[in-house]
Amino acid sequence: MPSEPKHRSSLKSNVARTTAADVARAAGVSISAVSRAFTANASIAKGTKTRVLKAADALGYQPNPLARGLITRRSGMIALLMTEVTNPFYPTVLETFARALSKRGKHVMLFTPAEDEPLEALLPRAFGYGVEGVVITSAKPTSEMMAACESAPVPVVLFNRTVESSAISAVCCDNEAGGRTIARFLAEGGRRRAAFVAGLAGASTSLYRERGFAAGLIEAGLSAPLRAEGHFTFDGGLKAAEHLLALEARPDAIFAANDIMALGVLDGLRRVGGLRVPEDIWVVGFDDIATAAWPSFGLTTFRQPINRMVAETLRILDLAETGAPGSPSTVLVPGRLIERGSTGALQPRS
Amino acid sequence: MPSEPKHRSSLKSNVARTTAADVARAAGVSISAVSRAFTANASIAKGTKTRVLKAADALGYQPNPLARGLITRRSGMIALLMTEVTNPFYPTVLETFARALSKRGKHVMLFTPAEDEPLEALLPRAFGYGVEGVVITSAKPTSEMMAACESAPVPVVLFNRTVESSAISAVCCDNEAGGRTIARFLAEGGRRRAAFVAGLAGASTSLYRERGFAAGLIEAGLSAPLRAEGHFTFDGGLKAAEHLLALEARPDAIFAANDIMALGVLDGLRRVGGLRVPEDIWVVGFDDIATAAWPSFGLTTFRQPINRMVAETLRILDLAETGAPGSPSTVLVPGRLIERGSTGALQPRS
Repeated sequence: MPSEPKHRSSLKSNVARTTAADVARAAGVSISAVSRAFTANASIAKGTKTRVLKAADALGYQPNPLARGLITRRSGMIALLMTEVTNPFYPTVLETFARALSKRGKHVMLFTPAEDEPLEALLPRAFGYGVEGVVITSAKPTSEMMAACESAPVPVVLFNRTVESSAISAVCCDNEAGGRTIARFLAEGGRRRAAFVAGLAGASTSLYRERGFAAGLIEAGLSAPLRAEGHFTFDGGLKAAEHLLALEARPDAIFAANDIMALGVLDGLRRVGGLRVPEDIWVVGFDDIATAAWPSFGLTTFRQPINRMVAETLRILDLAETGAPGSPSTVLVPGRLIERGSTGALQPRS
Repeated sequence: MPSEPKHRSSLKSNVARTTAADVARAAGVSISAVSRAFTANASIAKGTKTRVLKAADALGYQPNPLARGLITRRSGMIALLMTEVTNPFYPTVLETFARALSKRGKHVMLFTPAEDEPLEALLPRAFGYGVEGVVITSAKPTSEMMAACESAPVPVVLFNRTVESSAISAVCCDNEAGGRTIARFLAEGGRRRAAFVAGLAGASTSLYRERGFAAGLIEAGLSAPLRAEGHFTFDGGLKAAEHLLALEARPDAIFAANDIMALGVLDGLRRVGGLRVPEDIWVVGFDDIATAAWPSFGLTTFRQPINRMVAETLRILDLAETGAPGSPSTVLVPGRLIERGSTGALQPRS
């Protein structure tokens, strides 16, 4: 393959050489017209745009979004700061963002901290790249993080997190309503003694789900839930189940603050405790990750409407772009209960 | 919070105003010294670096990687083109890349096509951003894609994919050796009639795993494997199990080309077919995703060494950066068999 390296280097210099000015000259238009031809929704006559695109194609011109970003402050990049890429809820979130942004010609820059790196250390890096907005999905934003966000040069949205009395916008499933819905559902199903498996201490999602759940149980005339910690992990859920099984007065229903813990609870109850689900005990999760629907689990859960949550997040970022950022707001998107075998619903064959 | 918008706008103009030249003047050094102070591993005297960093801090200066990228052609960004973000193997890959790059002060730009968008359409966009390298994990790179890669202005590495007789570098687990190892293991375990569940038609990973598996069975004196298609999905695995159970001469072992299919096979055999695993039939997967180790599954699988695969990929991208790109190469990283309950190993309590 002797011609290959040559081809590569000649193309490299092409990319470096052809500029918007070359294209403008070839098409007989202004440089600004070239720029508008490559900007989605920019105002430009159809004939002019066609001429520019033809000339650009002939010359092998590629618009340089970096150079344009420096001038227009529109880099086309949105930063996603994520600490939990492997909890199966987040890959779906990431994919939904990436697809939605790709449609608008924009892209995700992913910031995931190295093991001992605080998340807030990544913010200045993201700003330095001229990202147009920042989305944060850290389980527990620190106060340093919040301070950095409040003085951010671009809009910042907390996704699936809220921070009370913060000036930062947030988009969340209505977690409290979700917890209350589950409590009511368990009470109506004749459950008398419910337990809650919490996520990471201090995570707003877990707190609000627990608050709604406890309130809902009491409203239904039941006592406040038993409690265990599961740290938002499968192993944490498994250990929480063992802990709850060892209690003198066992629960007859367990609500875990996310699906991955609920699956651990299920496995703990069945494989370790030898219980039957739903005959001996019910289990409910929160998220509706794909695994919840697998025949081995058939987990009843509260579905988070990821598509709508992502759409709301982009709406906030877009609004801010127009020059009218609006006041920071918290958007609560309603979710819904999905009944499956772990609470006695007939399990459909998939 | 009346002071908040004011704070935001004053910070915005600060970011825009302070330049490397300001910092150089304040620190009494050259602009190039400022640049070196902010570049990892650049040659600069310790005292000079300290002075620059102090001056930068006092002035609120943030180096602008975009501007630097335009000059040095080092944007600090690596493009990851991924089509399957939600197959649980890939989030781990993504996280491993993001963490490793973050340590080097570099970041992942994620390119995931919208539903009807061909992956190769994203390549020019990535090049336009001045990314330093491209990593592709598409299941089936098209020939258009390969042509675009061969004339790429920056190094491109196929991750977990190979394309025969291509000039593009690739990093893969040794899939053929993996398939052969599994065949040998099944034969030594007394299995007489094995089946293979293939992934997407044309995916190199599935092809090489099947090739090694078939060769290994024949070398062990068994016949070539029965076969079903599972499209690399859980539901595909479930349906493949139903298909294999309907055969007159059922298999006594099933190897699925990835874990997510193998888990579908397991659920199909047990929940739909009423078989016991491993008593009636063995199941083996490939990847070692976290779910494989859950008590409900205890899936024997062939572990892909993601850390080493990512390290090899970065090595290729780094090498190319030094100006000595080297010839395109395919790096095969050895994996290893992890025995669990689905082939009769004692299942440890987690």
